[in-house]
Amino acid sequence: MEFEENGIGEECGVFGCVAAGEWPTQLEVAQVLTLGLTALQHRGQESAGIVTSNGASPPTYTTHKGMGLVSTAFPAEALQKLRNGNLGIGHTRYSTSGNSELQNCQPFVVDTLHGEIAVAHNGELINAAALRKKVMRHGVGLSTSSDSELITQLLALTPPMEEVDAPDWVARIKNLMTETPTSYSLLVMFRDVVYAIRDPYGNRPLCIGRIVPISKLQSSGGGEGDTEGWVVSSESCSFQSIGARYYREVQPGEIVQISKHGVKTLSIVPRPEGDVPAFCIFEYVYFARPDSIFEGQMVYTVRQRCGRQLAIEAPTDADLVSTVPESATPAALGYAQQLGLPYVEVLCKNRYVGRTFIQPNTRLRQLGVAKKFGALTDNFAGKRIVLIDDSIVRGNTISPIIKLLKEAGAKEVHIRVASPPIRHPCYMGINIPTREELIANRPEFQDIAGYIGADSVKYLTVEGLLSAVQGGLASLHEKDEMISSNNKLSRRVGHCTACLTGKYPVELEW
Amino acid sequence: MEFEENGIGEECGVFGCVAAGEWPTQLEVAQVLTLGLTALQHRGQESAGIVTSNGASPPTYTTHKGMGLVSTAFPAEALQKLRNGNLGIGHTRYSTSGNSELQNCQPFVVDTLHGEIAVAHNGELINAAALRKKVMRHGVGLSTSSDSELITQLLALTPPMEEVDAPDWVARIKNLMTETPTSYSLLVMFRDVVYAIRDPYGNRPLCIGRIVPISKLQSSGGGEGDTEGWVVSSESCSFQSIGARYYREVQPGEIVQISKHGVKTLSIVPRPEGDVPAFCIFEYVYFARPDSIFEGQMVYTVRQRCGRQLAIEAPTDADLVSTVPESATPAALGYAQQLGLPYVEVLCKNRYVGRTFIQPNTRLRQLGVAKKFGALTDNFAGKRIVLIDDSIVRGNTISPIIKLLKEAGAKEVHIRVASPPIRHPCYMGINIPTREELIANRPEFQDIAGYIGADSVKYLTVEGLLSAVQGGLASLHEKDEMISSNNKLSRRVGHCTACLTGKYPVELEW
Amino acid sequence: MEFEENGIGEECGVFGCVAAGEWPTQLEVAQVLTLGLTALQHRGQESAGIVTSNGASPPTYTTHKGMGLVSTAFPAEALQKLRNGNLGIGHTRYSTSGNSELQNCQPFVVDTLHGEIAVAHNGELINAAALRKKVMRHGVGLSTSSDSELITQLLALTPPMEEVDAPDWVARIKNLMTETPTSYSLLVMFRDVVYAIRDPYGNRPLCIGRIVPISKLQSSGGGEGDTEGWVVSSESCSFQSIGARYYREVQPGEIVQISKHGVKTLSIVPRPEGDVPAFCIFEYVYFARPDSIFEGQMVYTVRQRCGRQLAIEAPTDADLVSTVPESATPAALGYAQQLGLPYVEVLCKNRYVGRTFIQPNTRLRQLGVAKKFGALTDNFAGKRIVLIDDSIVRGNTISPIIKLLKEAGAKEVHIRVASPPIRHPCYMGINIPTREELIANRPEFQDIAGYIGADSVKYLTVEGLLSAVQGGLASLHEKDEMISSNNKLSRRVGHCTACLTGKYPVELEW
Amino acid sequence: MEFEENGIGEECGVFGCVAAGEWPTQLEVAQVLTLGLTALQHRGQESAGIVTSNGASPPTYTTHKGMGLVSTAFPAEALQKLRNGNLGIGHTRYSTSGNSELQNCQPFVVDTLHGEIAVAHNGELINAAALRKKVMRHGVGLSTSSDSELITQLLALTPPMEEVDAPDWVARIKNLMTETPTSYSLLVMFRDVVYAIRDPYGNRPLCIGRIVPISKLQSSGGGEGDTEGWVVSSESCSFQSIGARYYREVQPGEIVQISKHGVKTLSIVPRPEGDVPAFCIFEYVYFARPDSIFEGQMVYTVRQRCGRQLAIEAPTDADLVSTVPESATPAALGYAQQLGLPYVEVLCKNRYVGRTFIQPNTRLRQLGVAKKFGALTDNFAGKRIVLIDDSIVRGNTISPIIKLLKEAGAKEVHIRVASPPIRHPCYMGINIPTREELIANRPEFQDIAGYIGADSVKYLTVEGLLSAVQGGLASLHEKDEMISSNNKLSRRVGHCTACLTGKYPVELEW
Repeated sequence: MEFEENGIGEECGVFGCVAAGEWPTQLEVAQVLTLGLTALQHRGQESAGIVTSNGASPPTYTTHKGMGLVSTAFPAEALQKLRNGNLGIGHTRYSTSGNSELQNCQPFVVDTLHGEIAVAHNGELINAAALRKKVMRHGVGLSTSSDSELITQLLALTPPMEEVDAPDWVARIKNLMTETPTSYSLLVMFRDVVYAIRDPYGNRPLCIGRIVPISKLQSSGGGEGDTEGWVVSSESCSFQSIGARYYREVQPGEIVQISKHGVKTLSIVPRPEGDVPAFCIFEYVYFARPDSIFEGQMVYTVRQRCGRQLAIEAPTDADLVSTVPESATPAALGYAQQLGLPYVEVLCKNRYVGRTFIQPNTRLRQLGVAKKFGALTDNFAGKRIVLIDDSIVRGNTISPIIKLLKEAGAKEVHIRVASPPIRHPCYMGINIPTREELIANRPEFQDIAGYIGADSVKYLTVEGLLSAVQGGLASLHEKDEMISSNNKLSRRVGHCTACLTGKYPVELEW
Repeated sequence: MEFEENGIGEECGVFGCVAAGEWPTQLEVAQVLTLGLTALQHRGQESAGIVTSNGASPPTYTTHKGMGLVSTAFPAEALQKLRNGNLGIGHTRYSTSGNSELQNCQPFVVDTLHGEIAVAHNGELINAAALRKKVMRHGVGLSTSSDSELITQLLALTPPMEEVDAPDWVARIKNLMTETPTSYSLLVMFRDVVYAIRDPYGNRPLCIGRIVPISKLQSSGGGEGDTEGWVVSSESCSFQSIGARYYREVQPGEIVQISKHGVKTLSIVPRPEGDVPAFCIFEYVYFARPDSIFEGQMVYTVRQRCGRQLAIEAPTDADLVSTVPESATPAALGYAQQLGLPYVEVLCKNRYVGRTFIQPNTRLRQLGVAKKFGALTDNFAGKRIVLIDDSIVRGNTISPIIKLLKEAGAKEVHIRVASPPIRHPCYMGINIPTREELIANRPEFQDIAGYIGADSVKYLTVEGLLSAVQGGLASLHEKDEMISSNNKLSRRVGHCTACLTGKYPVELEW
Repeated sequence: MEFEENGIGEECGVFGCVAAGEWPTQLEVAQVLTLGLTALQHRGQESAGIVTSNGASPPTYTTHKGMGLVSTAFPAEALQKLRNGNLGIGHTRYSTSGNSELQNCQPFVVDTLHGEIAVAHNGELINAAALRKKVMRHGVGLSTSSDSELITQLLALTPPMEEVDAPDWVARIKNLMTETPTSYSLLVMFRDVVYAIRDPYGNRPLCIGRIVPISKLQSSGGGEGDTEGWVVSSESCSFQSIGARYYREVQPGEIVQISKHGVKTLSIVPRPEGDVPAFCIFEYVYFARPDSIFEGQMVYTVRQRCGRQLAIEAPTDADLVSTVPESATPAALGYAQQLGLPYVEVLCKNRYVGRTFIQPNTRLRQLGVAKKFGALTDNFAGKRIVLIDDSIVRGNTISPIIKLLKEAGAKEVHIRVASPPIRHPCYMGINIPTREELIANRPEFQDIAGYIGADSVKYLTVEGLLSAVQGGLASLHEKDEMISSNNKLSRRVGHCTACLTGKYPVELEW
Repeated sequence: MEFEENGIGEECGVFGCVAAGEWPTQLEVAQVLTLGLTALQHRGQESAGIVTSNGASPPTYTTHKGMGLVSTAFPAEALQKLRNGNLGIGHTRYSTSGNSELQNCQPFVVDTLHGEIAVAHNGELINAAALRKKVMRHGVGLSTSSDSELITQLLALTPPMEEVDAPDWVARIKNLMTETPTSYSLLVMFRDVVYAIRDPYGNRPLCIGRIVPISKLQSSGGGEGDTEGWVVSSESCSFQSIGARYYREVQPGEIVQISKHGVKTLSIVPRPEGDVPAFCIFEYVYFARPDSIFEGQMVYTVRQRCGRQLAIEAPTDADLVSTVPESATPAALGYAQQLGLPYVEVLCKNRYVGRTFIQPNTRLRQLGVAKKFGALTDNFAGKRIVLIDDSIVRGNTISPIIKLLKEAGAKEVHIRVASPPIRHPCYMGINIPTREELIANRPEFQDIAGYIGADSVKYLTVEGLLSAVQGGLASLHEKDEMISSNNKLSRRVGHCTACLTGKYPVELEW
């Protein structure tokens, strides 16, 4: 809940679709794309964009971008405009820099010597500043501050630059991947193909699904012969809404080619000797939708395990366990189960609270969070509450909730946080307050309970979090169909905990 | 959940505020009103309106109305415009008739021989058609189809019509109340006073709150001497967000005058001999926010008792109990507790699903509900689920959820409904499908489980519902400060169950 | 030009259409109405509304209203919505009171004992305040400050009020006309009929047209047998754009019934003995479109005659005659012709100047009018200009134009105004600044030339204006087809010059 | 008038401003820019953009772009946002390609190795296709189809590319000018300087103005010492509205540097030996505002001379001369004067006609132009009209006007066109219909009078047009302050008449 309040967020979600079989396809690719992006809406609500291609040579691309939610940005006319696509890629964007202009909206389309390419990107290039200089030194002007434009220009720049009919995009992509180690999950569309790329550290998620006939969805049938189209998405939660089945993850460093003929691994770019993968652990803790599957395990389950682990590390003598709705609920249920305490709701959310229209300096502003949550007084009056939250970032939003509960009659309020304190910035795509704003770096943290008005405060440890995440990876084998066991093993080893520990997956050079 | 999907809804919410003490007040009345309406947003999202008065003689009224949510309809300029109010009333509207035009938006303001009055209404006049004829026979033209205009014209019409400085509005209001028995909770603003009126059957809710200094909120102190303003609202959930304390309900038939000097009962219009109150039971079952208090009991608690009662009436041999989020959750928790079964989440909601932008006749439309809910597969695969819903109205929304769960691996899905089947229309302000559309009146109801694809379906009985609602009324004494015990007793007796039983509180005359 | 700058304006335009022959009609009534209103757009740009009726018993009315120009307020969906109309009335509104809300937008529709009526009104009831009191004393509440609502309620109120199938609307309209002498041109739609009414003084214009087949438009043929529909409009300029021919004016005091069967005079309500008509002379001077015809003469021609008369009354020794574009151009051409001086353009207009977005107190604001007009320097440098304007109201807009011309090299600038000074308020529908703001009532008027920086200033006299207007009425006989010569003679006699002379057509009673 | 109807238009207008003297300046640069662009609005109404710089090192640029008119695109907040600028450039865009997206809106800003530059461009690069290939071969991807982006990348690309503090932009601009001969009038902003560039053929206009204190505007005083700021604009008509004086034109091939210290010629890039300038003759005929000055002469005067010349070449035996308002009026007045015929208005324009909202295939569509113009019948009934238009492009808009006049009683209608027939495409920035759509290339042109329904049709000859334009250039000496007489002479020689003659200023290579 603190994440949301503090504007912590993922940079984006990406989604692509390629119709299988004969073209023009019967599959409504633009609808698949909008539904897919809608299911990724939690990864970015600022703007959305889709580019479709008819797949011809030369291809006709159609682009539509709009501000706001997918449902706002894609009215009926937009879908009409995009309807001739046989393949396409899309993007939802989260505003990080305040540059909330349509210009920064992805996918980014540029015309190159070989024709137009479209690029959608989730992540943040860790060496973006150096790469920008490099590109500009080559004489290229950059019109936005976005990594997507930078990536596109890097793809265009790679020599040899001859006017050939079949440019070697794979070589260019591999070259790009040697220029920048992380973090990116990338979709590149050219003519009739979508390339799906995940950086060698696998920092951002990316997985593949298969659209099967509706009649085959119920049954366990529907072999590859029945495939109506291929989709690729930041999260698997988008597959269900379009009638697709989870197929497999894109591996760290893998370049996958998706065409009407199917899915094909073109290359796997290795990490430096000795480096382990670095999948962002906060995808599990907060960002992803609970029904998504990463590394073979459901996110909800990991969160529940975090709650259980937290109960083991920091048990409480209390009457009931509750949650700050809605993101902390799985952890709260896990905590309650582990200790055998009753799970009780203490807050109800006003779903309709929008942007604040109240000017500063008014009496009513002080009431703050009360606009957002109502206290379910009779459920906890006179009782000792353990309240589970998923994180405490600045400490300024949990405080009024505690006050609210105490005013409404709670005897004690103990805060248990289902993740460790955040202390370090992220350079790989997550928007985190400055070091100084993070409560864990401030003097108040010495008496955090006193500061926020709680009777006690405890956090999950980094080790506890890692065990909750990695403890379930044994079950991976049955889920992921296509990857050789070698790859599975190598992938299973590591997660990025840089914001908690300060240990970044690659050395920072500035 | 079915309610929402089927467009069942309350007609509106009303909210009023009068600053206490010296005028011009320091209290930001327009902000109190917008926050109050925001907390009532679940009662109507189509449009919102506010009228403030400076309370002078003659008064200056300022009106602002807008389409959409309160946060949309009331931008900063609107608040600026309304800022000189010392008192005011507001309204949120739910579209019932499709006449979603600003013209129908309340409050309704009319100029009368004695000056302007403003009226905000929640409910539906059971004899509206006859009253319209009566008013028009008097030579009045009606420019809208709204009950509010009708009420306003009835107030204006009442003889004697002389041009006096202090018109007897109470006499006019009492006259109105003899013309129409139900259903209305009504706010009438004239100059420096807000009249709060509840129909003799108490069909719609209305309660009073007291704004206290923020410093007094925490403590149990803050006597009437500290009052900064009085508020009146459809539901008490709005008090918390503006820093007000619950004071008491307006009684059935009561006319309360709220002025800068405080709250005063002007009259209590009785019901016909022998008639009992008829507070709408669906306020408990579905409409109200769970943290609101009616008749001294918290709505959440009643819903939880419904779940417990349902477990007693219709227990199930299953592995886990779950909910269709979010409205059925209290009942599901109650059901689980009663039977000692684990409460487990099986569905997660995509918060960002907006209006459908997909045209009919497409493959993707068939996937329906999957856009809205994701299945938390690992939580229930291979298990027998008892799924609690708050109602089944048409039967067309629970069906795809069941399919979704079964596709995802549920072994059995048993549906338990925390309210009885709806079989009859409501003429008192609730929007219900036609008799023919209600599943309980259709042949399919004979095999409802087969029809919706469940392994079994059971409903709460009317008696069970009434016992869940009325069983808790013993605790009423401590909550409601101001009402004589006589009134309490009389009020406790009855609830309107017309949509379930066909027994209307008054005889229908057409 | 001063009019425009000073917010002087007509209250509105009205337009109605009834399809002739069989219903459902082939005539696209909603399109006729929107085109007709577009041609009346100069009479009001704030909002527009249309109500159509299918003409059945009971009828179905469809209403659409919107803010802004007709083209904005009536998008394709609105026309679609209105398409089933066989008849309809419309209105364009000019904001007079600043109450620019949709609620005040006409036509006004109310439900009465006999069914719904729709009313569109141009004018202002001279005794509105007294009538409001009267209506309210009867117990009617008025929800807007508009005369249209007042008129509608007066029509609804008239006794006897019995529920009959064929209400006597003519009796009610006559009754209304006895209650209020002026000013109104009124359209009342009921079921399958439009009543067109002009007040006994004929203060506001109203005329009738006949839609003929396009093939007949070119020829002089197309008798009444060919009529496809009847239209009624504030001004005849709207007929051309819909392929209609001018038919005749509605006479002062006349009640015309327009049905599918044609046009019929139902009654002519007389003026008090001795009173003459009082058609607003400023319709000729400024408001009307130059191609409209009043009293048998084209407005442009009258304006040209005003210029000629002004040349006779106030000749100038100068090198060239010019205009403040665009409204003063006919008068300027007349003035130049009369004196044999060359007509030369000295100003060009920036068509794209919109609302000012510049905040006060800036250097650039002082440049004022330069944003709106460019000086055609080479046309007048070193020369003596006679600049014709249609009016000087406040004197604050002509002043910067003179400065502009002098800066650009004009040797002398003489102002000649093609109408007399305005000194008195209008209570009949024209928005005029307060008495104190009118330059003709201020001390500066003693040296008006010095005040505005001109070398000389002269106005047309009231007698000169009347002779320019009435001198052309001899040609009336051939134009107006249907009126008996008696009526023509009586109508020819008088015009309202109240704002110039203070002589109002009826006694003011407050 | 035909131009407007046929979507013929200029590509854009550019405007720049640099505050003189100390920075931060008192001059409200953002307001100067918006007013300047407003005065250039006739050159583009689709979108507008402004970039300001604080002039620091490194500079802070602020950008605002919006769709629609300047007044729409630049609300108060936008001006607020831009307020810290000490210099800036702006652009209004005319939609040529239908790509009416914000992305194509100028000025274009890109980050280069030396920092950000901003570019605003009027014109069209005649060798754009080849240049795009060249840039892309270098490895640059182009994200739009606009010439501005291409220009910007060309500026960024020029070697040597080293990271120096004071990049040699002049060398880069000169290099750009050798790559592309025409057509461009270009503003390039870098840090604290605006470079104003006109292509060697001077195809598009560009001139410089000087902001003087308001108090000095009236007098002939105000030397350079009084300069408050420098402005540069596509047309001089924008100077008056911001209180600036015309200073001089930018010469063909000239690179001017505008800084707080004043205006300085950095270089003049020559044309190939023997080539003459090629200023677009249609700037005189149609595009420019009549009060603008090119080559020392006022556009209005040239148009009047075109009318006179047309009268000499194609006199008519008629009763009156009139105009299709408003663009043909100067020519009509010239024509009338030359022949001594009366100038009479026959059409009045409905200023409020917006986009057509009427669907095709309706009776009313046939009425076409009648919505836009009203016939001033009494001015011409029974008479022989010479109607002057500025051009006939497709022949489909003059035709209904002739029909309108004839239906209203004109005895004869003779069309005289104040420019020669257009027969060839423009590759230098003007949007012209395809060769096949141009009436002068179609068989109907053999009997153009019969085709459009006129009694006769005559065009101005190319020689006549050139003599009207060049005959006035003798008066140039007094107007243009700063240019050596050599340059004046060379410039005076040539105009581009490619669309009339097919002779392009440079050889076309595709």
